[in-house]
This record gives sequence, C-alpha cells and structure tokens, in this order.
Amino acid sequence: MKTRVLIIGGVATGPKTAARVRRLDPHAEITILEKGDMISYGSCGLPYHLAGLVPMKELTTTAAGLVRDIDFFRQEKNVAVITGVLAEGIDRNRQEVIATHLGTGKRQVWPYDRLVLATGSVPIELSIPGTDLQRVFSFHHPHDVARVIQAIRTKEIKRVAVIGAGLIGLEVADALAGQRLKVTLLELQPQVLPRLLDPDLANLLQRQMGQRGVDVRTGQQVLGLEGDAGGMVRRVLTTIDTIDTDMVIIAAGVRPNVHLAREAGLALGTTGAIAVDACLRTSDPAIFAGGDCVENLHLVTGHQVYLPLASTANKHGRVMGDNIAGRDSRFPGVLGTTALQAFDLNIGRTGLSTVEAEALGYQVVTAVVPATDTSHYFPMRSRVIVKVIAEACSRRLLGAQVLGAGDAIKRLDVLATALAMGCTLDQLANLDLAYAPPFASAMDIALHATNTLRNKLDGLVQGVTPAEAKAKLDRGEDLVLLDLRQPGEIAGRRIEDQRVLAIPSNQLRARLMEIPQDKEIITLCELGLRGYEAARTLLGAGFTRVAFLEGGLEMWPETIDH
Amino acid sequence: MKTRVLIIGGVATGPKTAARVRRLDPHAEITILEKGDMISYGSCGLPYHLAGLVPMKELTTTAAGLVRDIDFFRQEKNVAVITGVLAEGIDRNRQEVIATHLGTGKRQVWPYDRLVLATGSVPIELSIPGTDLQRVFSFHHPHDVARVIQAIRTKEIKRVAVIGAGLIGLEVADALAGQRLKVTLLELQPQVLPRLLDPDLANLLQRQMGQRGVDVRTGQQVLGLEGDAGGMVRRVLTTIDTIDTDMVIIAAGVRPNVHLAREAGLALGTTGAIAVDACLRTSDPAIFAGGDCVENLHLVTGHQVYLPLASTANKHGRVMGDNIAGRDSRFPGVLGTTALQAFDLNIGRTGLSTVEAEALGYQVVTAVVPATDTSHYFPMRSRVIVKVIAEACSRRLLGAQVLGAGDAIKRLDVLATALAMGCTLDQLANLDLAYAPPFASAMDIALHATNTLRNKLDGLVQGVTPAEAKAKLDRGEDLVLLDLRQPGEIAGRRIEDQRVLAIPSNQLRARLMEIPQDKEIITLCELGLRGYEAARTLLGAGFTRVAFLEGGLEMWPETIDH
Repeated sequence: MKTRVLIIGGVATGPKTAARVRRLDPHAEITILEKGDMISYGSCGLPYHLAGLVPMKELTTTAAGLVRDIDFFRQEKNVAVITGVLAEGIDRNRQEVIATHLGTGKRQVWPYDRLVLATGSVPIELSIPGTDLQRVFSFHHPHDVARVIQAIRTKEIKRVAVIGAGLIGLEVADALAGQRLKVTLLELQPQVLPRLLDPDLANLLQRQMGQRGVDVRTGQQVLGLEGDAGGMVRRVLTTIDTIDTDMVIIAAGVRPNVHLAREAGLALGTTGAIAVDACLRTSDPAIFAGGDCVENLHLVTGHQVYLPLASTANKHGRVMGDNIAGRDSRFPGVLGTTALQAFDLNIGRTGLSTVEAEALGYQVVTAVVPATDTSHYFPMRSRVIVKVIAEACSRRLLGAQVLGAGDAIKRLDVLATALAMGCTLDQLANLDLAYAPPFASAMDIALHATNTLRNKLDGLVQGVTPAEAKAKLDRGEDLVLLDLRQPGEIAGRRIEDQRVLAIPSNQLRARLMEIPQDKEIITLCELGLRGYEAARTLLGAGFTRVAFLEGGLEMWPETIDH
Repeated sequence: MKTRVLIIGGVATGPKTAARVRRLDPHAEITILEKGDMISYGSCGLPYHLAGLVPMKELTTTAAGLVRDIDFFRQEKNVAVITGVLAEGIDRNRQEVIATHLGTGKRQVWPYDRLVLATGSVPIELSIPGTDLQRVFSFHHPHDVARVIQAIRTKEIKRVAVIGAGLIGLEVADALAGQRLKVTLLELQPQVLPRLLDPDLANLLQRQMGQRGVDVRTGQQVLGLEGDAGGMVRRVLTTIDTIDTDMVIIAAGVRPNVHLAREAGLALGTTGAIAVDACLRTSDPAIFAGGDCVENLHLVTGHQVYLPLASTANKHGRVMGDNIAGRDSRFPGVLGTTALQAFDLNIGRTGLSTVEAEALGYQVVTAVVPATDTSHYFPMRSRVIVKVIAEACSRRLLGAQVLGAGDAIKRLDVLATALAMGCTLDQLANLDLAYAPPFASAMDIALHATNTLRNKLDGLVQGVTPAEAKAKLDRGEDLVLLDLRQPGEIAGRRIEDQRVLAIPSNQLRARLMEIPQDKEIITLCELGLRGYEAARTLLGAGFTRVAFLEGGLEMWPETIDH
C-alpha cells in the first residue's frame, strides 16, 4: 500500500522532507499544501535581493537553473504541491487534515498516513498604534520585500526606520544603507544583536554601523507610529526620541507558527514551539514537525530552545524524510550557530554567550583575541576577533563569538564543531588546523584565543576587559596604563589620560624602574599579545598588581583614533 | 638556582620555545644557538616573497613591525641568541653542547640544564650529476630564495625547471609562472602533490596548472642536469624527456636534521626523525626536541609519522616551554592537516588519503562533492570540491581533501576538527555549522559530502567515479550514460559518445521508457546531485544496474569543455 505523506508548508522544510521521502520511497503519495502562492524559495536571500545583489528568480531556482515551481515538483520529484490552501484543522483519529482553498473558499479533506507540520514562523507583531499605516512593512515573505522595493522605487523614500536590531534588522539596515537611504535602527535592548553577541563585540559592530551612516538607537522602546493626512507613516515615537521617517520596517523577530498543532492538541514545549523527539515526531506518532515551528535540544545546556534557522530546518527535513520512510534517523540538537554578513563584517556565534552562560549558573571564563585572518605579513589580510567562552572548572568550551572583515566564519565553524564534540580547551588548543600564509597564522586565531584563555585559567595572568579598564579610568582610580606600543602606533590611536605611561615593549626590561611598584598596572597594546607578555615580565620582576588589557585597544569601547 | 635552557636552532621552534619558557620562568638563562646568520623568519612566506607579494623584511618582523633580531630577543625576551654557531656534539653526562663559531673556527662549550633540539629539516639532495652547476638552487633557506631572485633579475632566465611537485614545488611553480617564466614541473610520481592528494583531485589541479601555462611532467625520474661551457645549467634529463632550461629549482622534499641527536645517541624513530614522548622529551629526559626534526603520533593510525609543518612546530614550542618550566603539557599528535594556495586554488588535506588508508588495510569509502562555497545564488560564489574518506564498518571519518577557488580551507578545518574528535559520519552530518548566504548553503558542502557518503554506505545508491566511468567507456563496455542536464548545460560541456542518452532531470519520470532496462546505466550531471536523484528514481522504477557519476562532470578526468 502506498504511504500517503501530507506536508503542511511549502517553503523550506516541507519541500526538503518531500524530496528525501521520494528518494527513499518511490511509491509514497506525497502532497504539500502551502497557504501562500510561492513555494520553495530561499528566504535567507531576501536581504540580498533587497540590496540588489540577487534577482528574486534566483531564490526560486535550483543551482542548475530550474525553477522550483509546482511543475518542477510534479515532474522531477513526483510530489504534488497545492498552493493557496490553508490547513485549518487536523482530525487525528481519522488522520485527515481539513483545509480551505483560499481562492474559492472551498473546504477539502486530505487524508494522511504520515503528516508533516512545516508551518514555519510568523513575524512578531508590535502592539503599538500605527502599524496599519502605509509604508509600514514586515520583512518575512517575498511579498513583503517586493512591497519594500516598490516603495523605494517611488523615489519618495529618503529615510527608513528599522525596528529591531536582530539578524534580519541588521541585514535589512545594511541593504538599505547601501542604497543611500538614511537608516535609523531601533532596538529595545541596550545593544545590537542582543540575542547573538556579548556587549563587547556588539559595541564594535555598532561603531562600524555608525561609521557607515546608520543611526543606531538602542535601549529604547517603540511606542507608536504616526502618519500624515494621506495615511503614510511619518514618525516613530519611542520612549526617548521622535524619529522622522518615510518608511518603517518591523523586524522584531519571529515566533513559531503553532496554531494548527495547538488546535489539534499536539504537545507544545516550554518555548511555545511544537515539542518533538529526536526523530522529530510530535506527541502524535503519525505526525512529524520540523523547521521553524519546533523547538530544539540545545547541545550545551540540554534545555529546549527556540532557535529557528534554515540550516536546522534543512537537516530536519532529511531526518523526517528518513523516519517517514522507515529509516531510524535522529537529529541530535543545536548549538544556535548563527552567522550574518553586514556592514562588511562577518559576524557569528555558536553555543552560549557569556551573558547566557552566566544566567544559567556556569562559572564563565572568556578570552577575546583580535588578529589577522592570514599570516600577519600576507598582503590580503583582514582583522578578525575571536571570543571563546568556557566553563572554568571543566575547562569545557561553552560558546564562541566572532566578528571581523576577515574570514571569521571559518573560526566559528571550527569552534562549533569542537563544541558539538564536547571539546575541552586543552584539546582545542592542539587541533591540527590548516596553515599556510593565505589562510591563517601558524597558530590559528581560534587556537591563540584558546591559549589565552588557558593562560588565564592557569593563573599565569589576570586580564581586564577594555570596558572594565575604561570604567576604572572613569571612576578616577589611581593606576598605571602601561602602553607598550611603538611610538608610530601610539600616534594614530591613543587614550588621552595622565595615567598612561608609554614604554615600548622592547624597552620594558631596561626601564622597569620607571614603573611605580605600588600601583595597579594595566598593560596594553594594540591586540593584547604584548600586553600579556609584559604582564608576565612585570610579575616576574616582582610587581604584584598587574593585569593585561584583553584584546588590546582594538576592543576599547569608544573611538580613540586620531 | 637559575635553569640554563639551551636551544639549538633559531628559526621557528627554537624562538617559540624560548619565548614560552621566558613567560613562565623569569629567571631562566635562555640561550639560542643558530648556525646560520638569520633567525626567527617566516619560512612559509618565502614562496610569496619570490612571487613579489611580501618583502623579505616582513618575514622577520612582528605584527607590530619590530624586527625579530638578536637585539629584539635580548631586549624584549631576555633571551640570548648567538648566530653563526654550529652545535657539533652533546656531552650528555656533563650536560654540555660543544659548538664551533663558524666565523672564527673557535670551539666553545655550552652547559645546559635543559637542552632543546630545534634543528629543523634539510632539503633532500638528489644523487644526480649536475647539481653543482650554476643556477641550480634549493628552496629552503632565505638565502636560497635571494639567489633565485637575483638570477631572475639578470633577465637571462626565460625557462625554469622545478623538480618535485610537492607543496613547495607547487608554490614555487606558481610564483614563477606568475612572473611570465616558462615553468616545467617535474615529478617522479604519476601525479602532482602525491603525498597530499588522491589522484582525482590532483588531476584537477594538474589541468588548472596546464591552463596557466605550466608544463607538468609526472611519472618521470630526473637522471641528471647538464650545463653549458660556462657552467650554467641548460638541460634536465629525465627517464623520458630532455628539457631545456635556464634555471633549476630542486624541491624534492626535506628530511629531519638529526645529525646532532644521532651522534649523541638519542633514540630516533622508525621514520628517521627524533623520537619524542607526548611531552616532547627525547630518550634523554634533559633533552627535548620539537619542530621539523621530530616525528609525531598520527591521531588516526596511531603510527609515528614524519610530517614537518610550521603549525605543528609552533605548538611543539609551547609544549616544550611548558614542560621545561615545570608544567605538565602534552602534544597529542597530528592529522597531517596541510594547506596551500597555488594557481588560484585553495588546496588541502587532513588525515589519511584514500591511497594511504587502503594501504593501511582500512575498508575505505569515499564521496566527492563539488558545490559552491556560498548559497548557489550568492553572486560572489566560487566552486569548492570536498572529498570525505571514511571507514566503512565504523562509519568513522579517516580523512578529507579539498580543492577549489572558493573557501575550501574552512571545510578542511571543520573536517580536521571533527577528525581529531573521532567524529562518525552520522555526527558529522548534523553539525550545527554557520549558515548565511555569503558563507555556505543551508547544508554546508562538508555535510552534503558526508550525507552522500552515508547514502552510499546505507546502500541507497552505488557510485561510479568519473575515472572508472571513463575507463568503462574506453574499454568499450555496453552501457548508457544518462545525461540529466538541461540542453544549455550540455552545449558547453559534453562527452562525445554514442552511449550518451540525454534526458533532462525534469523529464526523466515521463521518459523512463526510452531507457534500456537491460543495460548498465550511469546517471550523470554537472555536480552529482541530479545524478544521485535520478539513480534513486530509476531504482524505484525497477531498473537494477544503476550507478551515479560521483562529483559529476566537474570531476571528469579529462577536458570536455567545448
């Protein structure tokens, strides 16, 4: 007997599941119901479409150039796709889905042997007045993006306010700023990418955005939108500011689309997303769910989390297809590895942030290392910052964050792989990674950062973060900021303060007597390496209150370039 | 009492060890003896110096621009470096090294508490006539490179023969070809990079080199060099050819420099390099050795191997420094992860090659996947080929190889990390790697290749390598090469053969009756994906003798572009 496989949702997880089932079971009757009029599009490419880099058509075609439309799925995969059909209920006893053809209003019953819920996510709507004004857009569906582009083409848009500085908000702000629009980015939390980055890295990103002309306003809540007499949005009102604008894009995040699952009595998890087991079965063994509508096991904490990502959705599709076709296949869980490219920076994180780890009660230690992504002498080098986050007692990696114009994501993927395998810092430091001058230093940044963290854990040195150091200065503490850089370096970038004492690293040993023994000493340089070495020299010379500036002036929380 | 740490060798491992000891022990008396006149230079950068990309000075300066000379080590590290001193003997009972000042011939005795042998490697010399001719060079020391550059500057050099198609031979050939010299690359083995790549990937590299005008001649042994009346080299004689040339660079690999260790009676390993334990102690507990003069534990096989690499040398320095300073620190071993950039390709391998694994008796399974390094629609995409090599019974990763204009090394580093952690294919396939359109597909190539291998292992499909397929064609076997590409794709690149049957993938299900049931069918496409899918379709439709072309026409062993 042919297995009837019914899939609700035709964007990413649904088609992937269908394709995998088809490859495993030539006889299955596979049907995808999609409420919209578009299927199988690469929604992660939408910001690049907005930026003018990718035609919409390319987001719906295969690598070989075939359009992934209804005909494609019928002809190439023997999968029936029906669009414009809204699934409204599941009769689990009869194993039927009741759906309505949105065009005609006609209801139809779809029987199934195996049902797949790939209902995705929906954008979070703000409960504020004015969201019904014209030129207020979401950025979730291709139709949203088409409307944004259409509005920009009117040439009536000079200013855009983007609400929400998460991944999509950042990508959209970058795409718009690149088109000479005046972009204001608004964020409730006190930093950009609050769910991805610790404040230190977020601060660097925010500075870069400011340099690119984006007006970033964090720590303010949007209270409402105001329009003109014609119904066009004209102002954003926040707890602090009133921002004039010609367009508003709301990118306040997404929530799982669980309406159908909840109505059918399927178990939801603590995150509000559909609960599934490792085979991606829901509480009803005939019903699977995957992609942006389910929660996932976090491999570091063992908790369920809601982290909707296309990479996860794709793997879910394969695992569901396997299980539907009778193969035992498990999805182990996620690390929340996330990456984006915005404002010419490659940005990402995996595992827990410092903030998350501390909130969960871990005893957290971190190291931040800026360095070049190639050998320091290779001409095509760029800067990358790697932050490693570990648990002190177990010396186990908990997470990592990266940011930089250079190849940051390679380091992120290495650290994500190490994290998934339960790597300790000591294992990590000796990984046999690829080295040649175009690709890395002989000691790759990821390993270098790990060694810095080991040095701290082993008690070789104490670190002080630039934010802490600046706070000490601001509090007027009596200390010495020992600047170890060469005069040429100091000229371009310096902290203007009486407490700075400049002794180049190669003169330090000869000039130790110039350094006061009775004061706290913070050793600093550009990237942290000389500061660390100098701290060891001072400790060896009998100084006791010594810490090095972690990540050096590269991580200083405000601009000191001259 | 101050520990006297004596280090023989001042290029890479020696200075790294000295620096680590100094940071841990402020009182140690650290002395480095170097036989040459240069210290602490980045020898991996020499090919880039030859190419004109990096001034020599940058290979001897820190990232902050300080020259790493004798003064630098004395002032900044309190380490004494003495150049022009050849260590000639070790009196292990007295803990003394006997050395000769090469300038004066004066002998001197250097006592030690801890001795470090960082004597590196020496180039393998060819036992052929003519190596003493003028314009016959090694490519090992900066002075070698200076001589090569000086010769090129005479403008008398039009043709260069490079002997040895290993990593250095390739980098040198690339650097020279970029300067409009006619380069002939000679290799004893039947392929380029014989110790790094399997023949399939090596073949692609070799074709690219041919397109860049390099005359690659593999499978021939150099018998001798001949010169003119002035003593200038003019010809290379091989077992097959006579090659006219104006210069010869011998890059036949290196061997460990173990003279001092052997004379002192220290244990050498089966590879001929110095044997050390995990703390990098030699058979004499007061003597450590690291870098290019020692052998390493291979983490996959458990065997000792000689794989001299700067990345390993750097880690050795840290581990030796730790142990000398009384900290317990272990070097776990290596995977032989190696990378190079040549002819606009990023190339690398980790772990075992197919050839090595088979020779060691593993039951080897492989998958080769070419794909774009970004989302397929991202405009700045490039091609990358990933080959994963695993053990069939344990489904454990054994090695990986990568090649491509795109970001191949990221995938290599991920696979190296997975390999170090003993990852199975099933763990690997679900790694939570970073995804955004500029960085990867939703299913990264490394995972895609892993899934292809799982499909083969799970019996879902049989693969045939392009080399095997071509051999079948050449043998005249009666089969069908089912080409699933679109007509536009076929036009540019096709196999001219009566046995090719073209049915586009989206017409396959409708045209099954055109395919003979009684013949072996090889499904093919550009990259392998449609071929795999079509193989599943045919198997589902009752065809029995079906295999897909692994890696597609991208991996075809000869040029078929039209």
